[in-house]
Amino acid sequence: MGIVVQKYGGSSVADANGIKRVAQRIVATKKAGHDVCVVVSAMGDTTDELLDLAEQVSPLPPGRELDMLVTAGERISMALLAMAIANLGQTARSFTGSQAGVITDSTHGRAKIIDVTPGRIETALVAGDIAIVAGFQGVSMDTKDITTLGRGGSDTTAVALAAALDAEVCEIYTDVDGIFTADPRIVRTARRIPRVSYEEMLEMCASGAKILHLRCVEYARRHNMPIHVRSSFSQRSGTWVTDSEERDPVEQAIISGVAHDRSEAKITVVGVPDKVGEAATIFEALAESGINIDMIVQNISAASTARTDISFTMPREDGQVAMTALSRLQGQVGYDRLLYDDRIGKVSLVGAGMRSHPGVTAKFFAALASAGVNIEMISTSEIRISVIIDEDLIDSAVTAAHRAFELDSDEVEAVVYGGTGR
Amino acid sequence: MGIVVQKYGGSSVADANGIKRVAQRIVATKKAGHDVCVVVSAMGDTTDELLDLAEQVSPLPPGRELDMLVTAGERISMALLAMAIANLGQTARSFTGSQAGVITDSTHGRAKIIDVTPGRIETALVAGDIAIVAGFQGVSMDTKDITTLGRGGSDTTAVALAAALDAEVCEIYTDVDGIFTADPRIVRTARRIPRVSYEEMLEMCASGAKILHLRCVEYARRHNMPIHVRSSFSQRSGTWVTDSEERDPVEQAIISGVAHDRSEAKITVVGVPDKVGEAATIFEALAESGINIDMIVQNISAASTARTDISFTMPREDGQVAMTALSRLQGQVGYDRLLYDDRIGKVSLVGAGMRSHPGVTAKFFAALASAGVNIEMISTSEIRISVIIDEDLIDSAVTAAHRAFELDSDEVEAVVYGGTGR
Repeated sequence: MGIVVQKYGGSSVADANGIKRVAQRIVATKKAGHDVCVVVSAMGDTTDELLDLAEQVSPLPPGRELDMLVTAGERISMALLAMAIANLGQTARSFTGSQAGVITDSTHGRAKIIDVTPGRIETALVAGDIAIVAGFQGVSMDTKDITTLGRGGSDTTAVALAAALDAEVCEIYTDVDGIFTADPRIVRTARRIPRVSYEEMLEMCASGAKILHLRCVEYARRHNMPIHVRSSFSQRSGTWVTDSEERDPVEQAIISGVAHDRSEAKITVVGVPDKVGEAATIFEALAESGINIDMIVQNISAASTARTDISFTMPREDGQVAMTALSRLQGQVGYDRLLYDDRIGKVSLVGAGMRSHPGVTAKFFAALASAGVNIEMISTSEIRISVIIDEDLIDSAVTAAHRAFELDSDEVEAVVYGGTGR
Repeated sequence: MGIVVQKYGGSSVADANGIKRVAQRIVATKKAGHDVCVVVSAMGDTTDELLDLAEQVSPLPPGRELDMLVTAGERISMALLAMAIANLGQTARSFTGSQAGVITDSTHGRAKIIDVTPGRIETALVAGDIAIVAGFQGVSMDTKDITTLGRGGSDTTAVALAAALDAEVCEIYTDVDGIFTADPRIVRTARRIPRVSYEEMLEMCASGAKILHLRCVEYARRHNMPIHVRSSFSQRSGTWVTDSEERDPVEQAIISGVAHDRSEAKITVVGVPDKVGEAATIFEALAESGINIDMIVQNISAASTARTDISFTMPREDGQVAMTALSRLQGQVGYDRLLYDDRIGKVSLVGAGMRSHPGVTAKFFAALASAGVNIEMISTSEIRISVIIDEDLIDSAVTAAHRAFELDSDEVEAVVYGGTGR
């Protein structure tokens, strides 16, 4: 049997008992005959606690030192996990990102993996040891400084190591049984999706599904590395994220799932003079401020005034920066005023099946209408439809869409085991 | 001006405020024109908290993983300290023991420094940056695994780096103003010793003075690196530990100080047959169990029985192991019984001046007698006299000896700033 890479998140190793439970799982996989390489996050709230300490010491700490600080978190969890495994009679060796050969660029706080040279991991696996690797961290190629990969970094570490080790599968352990057709906290009859394509998973990530991170799925698609998302609290099979070829077309549902996102805000630039280059000026200023725009809508210009309104959405946490950047443009662009709205939500249908099924959009909009949900903005891709609506109506919209596309299960399947939902 | 290496212990950086205070001190040294390399321990109780976690996960964790775990402590303190310095407008870069070039053997938990190759530190200092180095840790030459240096390791890191960087001085910051003629908590009139030789300091360390560790002083003596022990809470000059040549012989007191030690226990092997090789058998067994013997006394054999008693002292924490090792020998050696006593203490006079002053021993014993202290064992070196006495009489014995050798100051000098006395 081949190599299995397993990734355990912070909620799975939140305390000594969690670590011991995870150790038993790892040893069981080893005893089943696999070579096992484990990627682990920091315990529970460790990272937040370290960031709190940093804040007490400096309002704007240097990125290099912030990375040095927070990487202490995985160092603690990986060493404890190796000890717990040793206590079960297996040999485990822990490795920092640097020791595991995770080479990155020098962008502290959100470094990109450039190369993975897992020589020490391979040596450990050949020797019959279980390798435990610190997630989320690497070492920069140029400066040899410690770096971190940013949000979802441990998932990316796991997939990158799995690809470099030519593993059979990358198992991402979390506190639910996989990816569901909707958030089970909203739709109690949501079903576990047994298999989903990389493309659909990417659309779901971009639409607010939080279980996997975009970068990790992108990495997996590029290296065609199967991901198995499953719960560290149960033995059930979870959701396989694989190449779309591998799915039986007969099984193919039109819609794989309904995702939602509460993290965006909407800005409307009112009364923009309707002439060439004004929109470009606005979005260049936003790009220079490092703001990722999601959806954009431009109204048809009223002939009488020759002015138009431009609305767009972006992460709420960037709202202040975006408003400041736009305010500076008022003289240059000559718009009337800015409106800011962070009481919005995004609901998305995702499914490769909608490619071959016309009428999906109409059915979706009808379902929203019958639930009394007004649509503010619309955006589509080949396998996704997203709408911006009032934040308070997200639950109704998700439930209505889920029912309209017959995604409901006969029984309640989803159990959130960890409690915290991280 | 040259390079100054400063070492701050865990009590100096116990919380955010401590870290900020230490950062100001470091920046002041830098602004005075020195190149500054700082060695820092883990914050306050961090190491103990990590060891608690280890204990929850495994009763007997592998040394390699224990070292990986506890080195997270200095990683946190050094990154926070670098941030605090950056916040004061200076550039600081933190380095792990491995990054700083602290190369050790592979003995996890008490590794020995084999070499120091501080290339990255030198580069940082040349660039005008302040270098912050994790104390207590290194990387093994053979396996490239993270190691720790054991108790007092951060002091040793500081002295070793100072020697490798050819620094002017290695400043060891603590929470008292230096080395005192006796523990100020016992003798309120104890005086700060302005200068002491490496030899005297080594005897003091071996006699229970806790401010510096034996290994660090040995290292400093071997490389003739001056150590300045001083308080991180005041600006006063502390105690310089230097080559004895550097002290004005006229200033030389007979006795530099009175040290005491509450950490030993005494075992007496009663009724050992008085024949060749019996003592060797006993101490070989103890050496095999890894026990460091301090003092040994063998009574004169009673002619009628041809049997003798052998008493020795060793660290209390090894008492159980020693008793077990000796119990196994009863059949072979044929002694009568074992006595264990951990209610003892050791009081030592240390001073290079006693070399040239006869009568020191007589005066010491007379002082003890007049204080009603009975002497159980005696051990001497050229510059030290130690006695084992009843633990409850330590304070009286230290006070009496301090007074007899006229070490008392006219006023109370010592202030313990940190509170914890670590």
